[in-house]
Amino acid sequence: MTKVAIVGASGYSGEELVRLLLSHPHAELTAVTSRQQAGQTVAQVFPKFASHPRARTLRFVDPNAELLARAAEVVFLALPHGVAAEFAVPLLKLGSRVIDLSADFRLKSAAIYKEFYAHDHPAPDLLAQSVYGLPEVHRAAIRRASLIASPGCYPTSILLPTLPLLRAGLIKPQGIIADSLSGVSGAGRKAELDYLFVECNESVRPYGVPKHRHLSEIEEQLALAAGTEVTIQFTPHLIPVNRGILTTLYLAPTQHFSTAEEATALGARISACYQAAYANEPFVRVLEGKALPDTKNVVGTNVIELAWRLDPRTGRLLVMSAQDNIVKGASGQAVQSFNILCGYPETAGLL
Amino acid sequence: MTKVAIVGASGYSGEELVRLLLSHPHAELTAVTSRQQAGQTVAQVFPKFASHPRARTLRFVDPNAELLARAAEVVFLALPHGVAAEFAVPLLKLGSRVIDLSADFRLKSAAIYKEFYAHDHPAPDLLAQSVYGLPEVHRAAIRRASLIASPGCYPTSILLPTLPLLRAGLIKPQGIIADSLSGVSGAGRKAELDYLFVECNESVRPYGVPKHRHLSEIEEQLALAAGTEVTIQFTPHLIPVNRGILTTLYLAPTQHFSTAEEATALGARISACYQAAYANEPFVRVLEGKALPDTKNVVGTNVIELAWRLDPRTGRLLVMSAQDNIVKGASGQAVQSFNILCGYPETAGLL
Amino acid sequence: MTKVAIVGASGYSGEELVRLLLSHPHAELTAVTSRQQAGQTVAQVFPKFASHPRARTLRFVDPNAELLARAAEVVFLALPHGVAAEFAVPLLKLGSRVIDLSADFRLKSAAIYKEFYAHDHPAPDLLAQSVYGLPEVHRAAIRRASLIASPGCYPTSILLPTLPLLRAGLIKPQGIIADSLSGVSGAGRKAELDYLFVECNESVRPYGVPKHRHLSEIEEQLALAAGTEVTIQFTPHLIPVNRGILTTLYLAPTQHFSTAEEATALGARISACYQAAYANEPFVRVLEGKALPDTKNVVGTNVIELAWRLDPRTGRLLVMSAQDNIVKGASGQAVQSFNILCGYPETAGLL
Amino acid sequence: MTKVAIVGASGYSGEELVRLLLSHPHAELTAVTSRQQAGQTVAQVFPKFASHPRARTLRFVDPNAELLARAAEVVFLALPHGVAAEFAVPLLKLGSRVIDLSADFRLKSAAIYKEFYAHDHPAPDLLAQSVYGLPEVHRAAIRRASLIASPGCYPTSILLPTLPLLRAGLIKPQGIIADSLSGVSGAGRKAELDYLFVECNESVRPYGVPKHRHLSEIEEQLALAAGTEVTIQFTPHLIPVNRGILTTLYLAPTQHFSTAEEATALGARISACYQAAYANEPFVRVLEGKALPDTKNVVGTNVIELAWRLDPRTGRLLVMSAQDNIVKGASGQAVQSFNILCGYPETAGLL
Repeated sequence: MTKVAIVGASGYSGEELVRLLLSHPHAELTAVTSRQQAGQTVAQVFPKFASHPRARTLRFVDPNAELLARAAEVVFLALPHGVAAEFAVPLLKLGSRVIDLSADFRLKSAAIYKEFYAHDHPAPDLLAQSVYGLPEVHRAAIRRASLIASPGCYPTSILLPTLPLLRAGLIKPQGIIADSLSGVSGAGRKAELDYLFVECNESVRPYGVPKHRHLSEIEEQLALAAGTEVTIQFTPHLIPVNRGILTTLYLAPTQHFSTAEEATALGARISACYQAAYANEPFVRVLEGKALPDTKNVVGTNVIELAWRLDPRTGRLLVMSAQDNIVKGASGQAVQSFNILCGYPETAGLL
Repeated sequence: MTKVAIVGASGYSGEELVRLLLSHPHAELTAVTSRQQAGQTVAQVFPKFASHPRARTLRFVDPNAELLARAAEVVFLALPHGVAAEFAVPLLKLGSRVIDLSADFRLKSAAIYKEFYAHDHPAPDLLAQSVYGLPEVHRAAIRRASLIASPGCYPTSILLPTLPLLRAGLIKPQGIIADSLSGVSGAGRKAELDYLFVECNESVRPYGVPKHRHLSEIEEQLALAAGTEVTIQFTPHLIPVNRGILTTLYLAPTQHFSTAEEATALGARISACYQAAYANEPFVRVLEGKALPDTKNVVGTNVIELAWRLDPRTGRLLVMSAQDNIVKGASGQAVQSFNILCGYPETAGLL
Repeated sequence: MTKVAIVGASGYSGEELVRLLLSHPHAELTAVTSRQQAGQTVAQVFPKFASHPRARTLRFVDPNAELLARAAEVVFLALPHGVAAEFAVPLLKLGSRVIDLSADFRLKSAAIYKEFYAHDHPAPDLLAQSVYGLPEVHRAAIRRASLIASPGCYPTSILLPTLPLLRAGLIKPQGIIADSLSGVSGAGRKAELDYLFVECNESVRPYGVPKHRHLSEIEEQLALAAGTEVTIQFTPHLIPVNRGILTTLYLAPTQHFSTAEEATALGARISACYQAAYANEPFVRVLEGKALPDTKNVVGTNVIELAWRLDPRTGRLLVMSAQDNIVKGASGQAVQSFNILCGYPETAGLL
Repeated sequence: MTKVAIVGASGYSGEELVRLLLSHPHAELTAVTSRQQAGQTVAQVFPKFASHPRARTLRFVDPNAELLARAAEVVFLALPHGVAAEFAVPLLKLGSRVIDLSADFRLKSAAIYKEFYAHDHPAPDLLAQSVYGLPEVHRAAIRRASLIASPGCYPTSILLPTLPLLRAGLIKPQGIIADSLSGVSGAGRKAELDYLFVECNESVRPYGVPKHRHLSEIEEQLALAAGTEVTIQFTPHLIPVNRGILTTLYLAPTQHFSTAEEATALGARISACYQAAYANEPFVRVLEGKALPDTKNVVGTNVIELAWRLDPRTGRLLVMSAQDNIVKGASGQAVQSFNILCGYPETAGLL
């Protein structure tokens, strides 16, 4: 058993971490923090967890690094960017291992951080030591990490489908387009008019175009795989579901295909590439036959579904992915890294 | 006043035609047909129209071309493709003018029809005389038409944003990508498991990739504007709203831009192009400033909203459009053509 | 034409008033106020109205009684209770006629107001002169009123089904139960966590039990009809729709029935009672046959649908009503009163 | 480990049984039947279960009693009423124990079955031996049963809140009213127009009034507890959520209360009654303080939430319950009975 704590446990990612860690076979949840909810039990704040005995006794406290470092070996940070770094610094000094769900430690360059987040990085010295917590890609580094920067929903939905193809040289690093549809929980539990039920229900809208913040980490990870700089097009949309992200990727194969034979041959290479990358991954499901991803098949799970199609009319490769933005796109992924970090089976508490 | 009839009035497009024509200042709705609803009044089938006196007396009848031709000068066909042509042929012979909401007469080539719809065209002789009923593009031809092929939601959402740019040579005809999100009414009022509430709610999914039927008419219209063959990429998705289509278009400007000045100059040309095309169009709204399209701003209206962004990072032009798939994307557009055809103000019954 | 203004036009009721008054044939909208939106045009705040020329020029201003009294003959107040009275007092002094959508002037007793709203009534002297703006009940008084207290969605959904039965002595005034289901717009456009999309979607919940504020006005109006004090049970629930209220009423007929003949005879009296009350009312639709109310048949309209059933097993009468909480339950009803007040056809701008 | 099979596994209840039994620690799912899906694997029919190895090998077969009796010790029937009995008869003869989720064996009287279901009972001889599978009430009988009639969502939502009060004599058996709001999955996975997304979304409607079929079993169970015949009023409504039932009960306490002291004293007795009944029940949660039930707190779980309020104005007791209609209201409850039947911990596979 490993003692764990959650800082910022009253948001949607924090709530999901509570759910996963309360029933995790190897985690003991010893502290949850939230300034607004301090003094309340977990069961009072989240009635849905009231059946769990621990939820009826564990109380939210004000966040305090020393207390957290004493209470837990691993601390999850479910905080806004900028704020997360303020907690990571003292926690690491005090010897805790930190799994940060914010964007604070996902980039290697403080300059790019500033370009995209419009403020100086609060702890640039830590960027070198942090590990990008995408288990299917950086598993070995996660195992040895003290600071894990767990990626969010958009990057995961784009990187897992593209990285194996890029590394295998099957697609060009130029011209990648990612068109993403996100459920409203992605905006966080924030009292803002834009996210009221009436403003989201029966509404669909793009936002944050053309330069969304998460582009920075997506492009950094793509560049690592491609061995060259990568600039992509990314358009997020808000759709009226609680959970789920559907991303459609428009990719250019390096190999030309126009005849049926060429398409079949290229398809076989793509299939083999995904097979090699993901056949043994418990949380990546490459669909076969006519099936296409549907968020309702992954919501509530840590699974990301992929399907791909070659279009001989346009010469493009389409890849579509679906995941739960709060599980594989946030808290489930963080717990997956926790399992790796602590040497537990990677699926512990996630199936 | 013009006498009008609707064939296939029990589907979603038919129902919306009923709504628009019941309160149209220059239309008298004299017949509505539906095999299943024959004998029922409009008010019985659609309780929401019961406040309209005509709805309480007008009864659905079995479709019959001679009866329809006697009852109405203009007949709207809200039928599946293939079936629509069967009614159009006798109606035209009997002297009715026909506004067909199906795909049957939208293409000029029977061969392409067969390629995309997988059956022989039922009335190839009529293809030459039919007019593609996109008022903002073919207004003059609509005025003189006897057979109007009124385009549906996906083509409208793609063509209105791209045609002016193509005609002005501002974008390349190659490499166009259209990523569309459609409400469930787009699937029609069909008792199929895929469209049950529980299967659509909390679900998002692509479908019909990579070769959706409507590509054929979209590419034909784009080719007309570009003066060259056009092949596009089109990915429709189903999202849990009743109504609305949001399309995001990825376009390649013919002119390179990378500096701020170049972007500003190109932006001015795009703005002027849209201004010239749509400033006087009552149903096209080009958004300014920071506003982006949102289906909730157009649902229930015949308006299509557009916004565009140049992305200096990728060199692309993004254009986003939002419309009500059943109004501007179907029945409202058909009524707009009706107004043109009969010489009424184009906005009659549509504001 | 009558000049009209709206105070508090940025909430959901205010927005709907803007919609109805912009296209009203006898109203000229001369002023709209909102502290937050001051300086913006109506089209900027509500892009959906941008097709209306007036929306592109009319700008929100800070609320100011003298300015409003100069600008408009009739002023609509779409403000929270307590605040509405502060505007009504000077406006009435300055000679404007006021249609107030808040609860401030719906009761005759300042003491009951204080009991239910937990603060002193801000203008008790006006209670005697205000008219409860339920047109189907108080039409004559509305015609002569200077201050109309337009009732909201819950009272309307309960009063219109019960008042004729009570007046006719067909039901007992004791033991009335009203179980209501309201869309989320009923909570207003307020940035509160409880009304976020994620908190409302896939959720159903009662609230405000057992003593909701609107009980006070409902019981006062029932008592007027019954000629005796009335105490009812009322349970509101929040359901995930934008608009609509469905109320199920459990009533005790004064006449016992257990045989089929007795039920038929009583049914005939109920039917005749509703017929007498509502056959000529343009906005009340009593359903016949097997039809039951469904909010989707009234959303966007000023109509309230009713259906009733006698249950010989329990001896009770059930009446169910459906309406759009923002139209017949708020702004449409206010415009209906405006039409009466100004001598226009009662359906002007509402069909 | 106990071998189990599911007959009719392609509906919503069947699907949920698959989910629960695939991950149940003491159940081995050996057969699933569905005429339409025969030949497909569970993973093909339900992609969401594809992560479970068993789902990738287990194939749907045509239903066949002998095969099922060989394959499983306990057979779950997730079939329509009338059809379920046809399978129960041979399965029981062959020695299987049967947990039936239909209404076929919930009543003791074949005559009342005929009155409510409009056809002769298909196996009246089995009615005496079947046990009403509400674990909190009939636990001892379930332990010894060969045929368990597992109750559905409406009865559970009404019986668990009322039975303890009735048995304790705290409420009168007369005059009970149950007003219920159900998610659309309650209608089953049926391709009918009424349950299309577009027909349910943004809609709320009562149905089946005033004599819904489930009244028969509810009243039979209430009569058992009250020791006298009971006739209740029950109004179901359809609301646009996938899952969840919210029931509001209007009850008459046997003891009069009007002063604050009387209310406090009666409240203490009600609280003690629920405490005695449910304090040790793992799946009944009686809310305290200001909390009211909300379906979002129980969806996906086997928990039913209750809250109660005394209304001194009306002298009534209100009790509200919330549950997942497919879990505690169907498949979870059936698994709970399975655990009791087989001597496993009652919460096995359900937490």
